[in-house]
Order: sequence, then structure tokens, then C-alpha cells
Amino acid sequence: MNMKHRPEGHIWHYEKFSASSGQFIRIDSIVHSEQSDFQKITVFDNEDYGRVLLIDDMMMLTQRDEFVYHEMITHVPVNISREISDVLIIGGGDLGTVRELSKFTGIERIKLIEIDSSVIEISKKYLPFLTEGIREDADISIDDGIKYIEDSEDMFDLIIVDGTDPIGPGKVLFSEEFLSGCSEHLRPGGLIAMQGESPFAYPEASLSIHKNLQSAFRHIRPYLAYIPSYPSGMWQFFIASNTRFRYLIDAVLPESRDGCRYYNQDVHNGAFALPEFVRKMYNL
Amino acid sequence: MNMKHRPEGHIWHYEKFSASSGQFIRIDSIVHSEQSDFQKITVFDNEDYGRVLLIDDMMMLTQRDEFVYHEMITHVPVNISREISDVLIIGGGDLGTVRELSKFTGIERIKLIEIDSSVIEISKKYLPFLTEGIREDADISIDDGIKYIEDSEDMFDLIIVDGTDPIGPGKVLFSEEFLSGCSEHLRPGGLIAMQGESPFAYPEASLSIHKNLQSAFRHIRPYLAYIPSYPSGMWQFFIASNTRFRYLIDAVLPESRDGCRYYNQDVHNGAFALPEFVRKMYNL
Repeated sequence: MNMKHRPEGHIWHYEKFSASSGQFIRIDSIVHSEQSDFQKITVFDNEDYGRVLLIDDMMMLTQRDEFVYHEMITHVPVNISREISDVLIIGGGDLGTVRELSKFTGIERIKLIEIDSSVIEISKKYLPFLTEGIREDADISIDDGIKYIEDSEDMFDLIIVDGTDPIGPGKVLFSEEFLSGCSEHLRPGGLIAMQGESPFAYPEASLSIHKNLQSAFRHIRPYLAYIPSYPSGMWQFFIASNTRFRYLIDAVLPESRDGCRYYNQDVHNGAFALPEFVRKMYNL
Repeated sequence: MNMKHRPEGHIWHYEKFSASSGQFIRIDSIVHSEQSDFQKITVFDNEDYGRVLLIDDMMMLTQRDEFVYHEMITHVPVNISREISDVLIIGGGDLGTVRELSKFTGIERIKLIEIDSSVIEISKKYLPFLTEGIREDADISIDDGIKYIEDSEDMFDLIIVDGTDPIGPGKVLFSEEFLSGCSEHLRPGGLIAMQGESPFAYPEASLSIHKNLQSAFRHIRPYLAYIPSYPSGMWQFFIASNTRFRYLIDAVLPESRDGCRYYNQDVHNGAFALPEFVRKMYNL
């Protein structure tokens, strides 16, 4: 879905969101490009968005707006749970989610399982804004998250599924089998949080993820955030549990406010305010 | 800022949001194109977005997501005011805002002042989804809104400034002088609502509008909505008054819920939940 050509003498990255629309961004300089064992990874600089990470020619994150994704996939579930000692991240090799979790002193153990070591190495080397200040005791493993969920007996209070899109190798992280497997690694009251595509740009993918979550969890809630570099800018996350949870909160943990550029208490509650067309999609 | 070329044999509309990024959309068929006395107006069809209106080569609205803009610029202020008998719209020649106001039976008088009669004619002819069901007694005038605000002595409970962007001929609708003029046409407790650009894509324009509102009104509140076809997808509106107003509400008017695809009570309150970087922009 990628096209490159050179209007005005520049090189541009064109990314289709559908057959008939998409976005373009100028490649001011290519910082790194490789084909890892799993995917094509490109890092480039752009005047507006700063450093940009492409995986298989799709925008995964930009320096300008990655804070929205990483704060919202982390601070929302942590503030709903309140008591979290052990957190598992599946995917998340760019380490932005570990950076956000590192802001909470109450968390005892952060374990991350990323299948592609190249993503971790590239992030550490070329995307330092994602890895600065992360806890040195975070357990970063190169492994197959699917296999870990099948084989391990570790239990967690929060599992964050921080994968790419439900196409290609990342697809299995959205499957009924994998999500059911995750539910067996949650302690009573434990939560899972994951990215859930765009209900505007990809309503079918959104519904499919919701359906798979329904087969694995009793309680599910979608929430939204503005991520300008993603298709439509309206991005969705899901939080789910087999224990009933209060998704609206009265106050955020004081420590979670520090250093946030998107998240705050109003944003937390506002993110669960679903437009009518989204509410109706899920019969909420 | 417009480029057209033909990858894959199609014609595409390219729209830059800055020198180094933007969006593209395929032109499946051009429905209408003209140079009016004020601007270049183009209507085309696209597989994803349905019918699209360009003014001076910029996306003004699409059939797919115009409901967000028109519901949010209308239902938010009407539900905050609760008692509204006379409403003035400056601009809004596409009539989408009149369509939304027509859903409220309590409003006695709707007056719209549009400078460019071509926009109204094109909307009635080529964008019927905007004009279907609008009140027949709405007073649609072709006139200069600036002049009307200077010369008229009419008073209103709500003024909606529904203009294009603060570049070109629409710029004056964001000026201190015009907004001060509007304040003199508001009855006690009256409100003004307007589109306010994107705090992500255009923070300087956003701040400038806010500053101009501050010179004309004592109380101002920004609110946000997801509009995928606009730059960054994060779009802003302002509501302002010289009387203190409660912007959060306990319940929406029952009639305003009918036929809304975006707006509801949760969305109303959630729209005022500002991300940290927006809150800090305005020192809120």
C-alpha cells in the first residue's frame, strides 16, 4: 500500500488508509532501514513529526504524537486498577509503554516479551525519546508472546497487548485463542488493555477485536484518543477483565500526572465518552 | 497547497496540512466545479468519503463525517443555553448547521447570513444530505456578515460563526473586531460558538483565535471533536459568553438526541476534557 514519488523534488511516504484515501509525509532523511527476521523497519526524520518509525511501510509512531498512544495504553488501565504489582507487555518493543509504566513507583515487576529484537535495538539507538528514563530492572525478553502465554504459569495484575495491526504477523495478538490465553494469566481483578484500531477508519476490524474479547472476558470497555498520525486520527483501545471494574475514576494517582502531555483525570473519563455511532456499533 | 497527479491512473486530491505532511483522497468523479465571486468551489465523489466539498482546494466537508462538525457546533451550545429563541449563523452556507438547529422545536427564529450565494445553491443541488429536513421558515440571507454585525440592531441568544479557515476571505470572522461586534448582538446570557482550528495541527492559529475571543468575551471554553477529514483529525470549537455558563451538563434535551450520530450527553461532557498539552496552551 506504499507509493513513493518525488513532487517538488522531495521523497514522500504515501500511506493508504483505504483504496481511495490516505496520508503523505515528507522523508527529510532516512535514518535507518532494515529487513529484520520478521518485518521491514524504517526510521526517518520529518520536519513536522520529528523521527518516524515505519514497520512494513506503515506509520507505527512519530516523535510528535507517540505520547498519546503510550500514555493512553498505560495510564488508563493502571489508574483503573490502582493496585498493580506485576505487569506483562506483549509486543511493545519500542519500549514506549515501559517508559510510561516506569512513572509508577508502585509497580514491582515489568515484563516485556517482544518477538523482534531489531525493534528493541532500533528504538534504543534511534528513538531515544522512547527509552530514556525506563526502569533498569524491567525484564525485556526476546521471545514469542504467543508461546509464552501458552507455556508460562506466571500471573499478572495487568497485561498490555501492544502489537501492530491485525494484519500480517501481528494478527494473532487479536485472536480469540490468544486473548483467552491472556485471561488465564490474570490474577483476580486483573485487567487487559490493548490497542483496538479505529472505529471510524476500520469499523470491521474494531468489531472483530471486540467480539474476540467478548469470548475471553466478561467485561469490556472501549476508549478513544486523538492520534493524528494514525488513520482518521480517532484511535481506539480496549480494556477488559473477568471482574467487574469501574472505568470512570474520581482522581488519578498523583504520580501518574507527572510528565504526562495527554493524560489527566478529565481525559481519562472523557476517553470513555463514546460518540453515538461507536456506542451503537457495540450496543453499549 | 494543492497537487494533482495520477498514480495508478486515477486523479487524486492532495492537501497539505503543512510543508511536510498532508492527506490524499481519490477523485472518482467531479460533480461540479466553479469559480464563484468569492472562491473556487469543487464537489466530487470518493468511494470512502462519499460526496466531498472543496473550497479553494481545501476539504470543507465530506458526506461521511460532516455530522461530527455540524452536530458539535450546534448541539453543544444549544444544550448549554437551554433557553434559546433567536439564533444567528454567520457563514454556514452549506446549511448543515441549519439542519441541526432544525431538530430543536423550541427555537423561534433561525437567521443565516452567507456572503457567497453559490455555496448555498451548490449545497441545495449537490449536497442534499445537508439540506434535507431544514426548517422552511429559516431566514437565509445573502449578505456580508461583517457588515450585518456592524449595522444591524438585532439581538440573539446564540451566534454560531460557521466560517472557513482564518486564511483568505474567512479570516475576518476570527478577528477581535468582528468577535467584539458579535458580543453586542447577544442578549444577557447569550453564547457564541465557533470552529477553532486544530490545537495539534495549528496551535498558533488556535491561540490567536482564543486571544481574540478573550478580548471580546469574559468566559471562553474550548472543546474538541474527532473530524477525520480535517488536519490531524483533532478539531476544536470555542464557546464563549460575557455571562458565566456551566459547560458541563446533567442531561441533554431529549429532542437533541434524535438523529444524532456523534453527539450525546457523554460526548458533550467528554468534549470539554482537554488533553494536558491543550490545557496548558490556554493556561486552563
